[in-house]
Amino acid sequence: MPQNVVLETNRTDPAQGPGCCVPESGQPSLNASDAELLAARFKALADPNRLRILSIISSSAEAETCVCDFSEPLALKQPTVSHHLKILVDAGLLHREKRGVWAYYSVVPGALGELARTLELKS
Amino acid sequence: MPQNVVLETNRTDPAQGPGCCVPESGQPSLNASDAELLAARFKALADPNRLRILSIISSSAEAETCVCDFSEPLALKQPTVSHHLKILVDAGLLHREKRGVWAYYSVVPGALGELARTLELKS
Repeated sequence: MPQNVVLETNRTDPAQGPGCCVPESGQPSLNASDAELLAARFKALADPNRLRILSIISSSAEAETCVCDFSEPLALKQPTVSHHLKILVDAGLLHREKRGVWAYYSVVPGALGELARTLELKS
Repeated sequence: MPQNVVLETNRTDPAQGPGCCVPESGQPSLNASDAELLAARFKALADPNRLRILSIISSSAEAETCVCDFSEPLALKQPTVSHHLKILVDAGLLHREKRGVWAYYSVVPGALGELARTLELKS
């Protein structure tokens, strides 16, 4: 995950002058490699069921949810739930822990906050 | 855009008890309609070139960028740039203003911050 990448930055550099849209290097401040990594995480969020999965986990008393407890509130079959959970795990947003016959999912500490900080720090 | 929707919430309600993964209503705290709206915005961000467009605008001295100034730093042809800009405008993330022969793009005030707040308030 890229560190210290923000999409909104200070705009107080008078050297750039009016009408200058690109930093002096001629390159955007977010490079192609960091942009790929960020886009992959936003892609994992770009689905209403995955957002609701995160919401369910975050709303739970234990901050984790059994794989068996998503189907009913989302009205989805288990294979579909598992598909969405895998995408969130692969994107580094969810942690999976197997205990007994069930897997339990929790939000990776700081992962959503880190994404939030890339979006904006000041508004 | 849904207001007051956060994916991370306080988890201090002892009434839910351990192992309870879903609020007492039996529904996740993010409803299907709000999830659709949020997912559409994250989908607009789920592309490295669109993230770099936002980065270019946010890094500019005037906080706006002429449509003519994206192609070179992104190494994209103008129709591709215009395609990405339209998606960001349609998602409510960019504002477009025509002045003379050129269109200028700026980030909608607060739009990225609002999305950031839906992701997380506390970490």
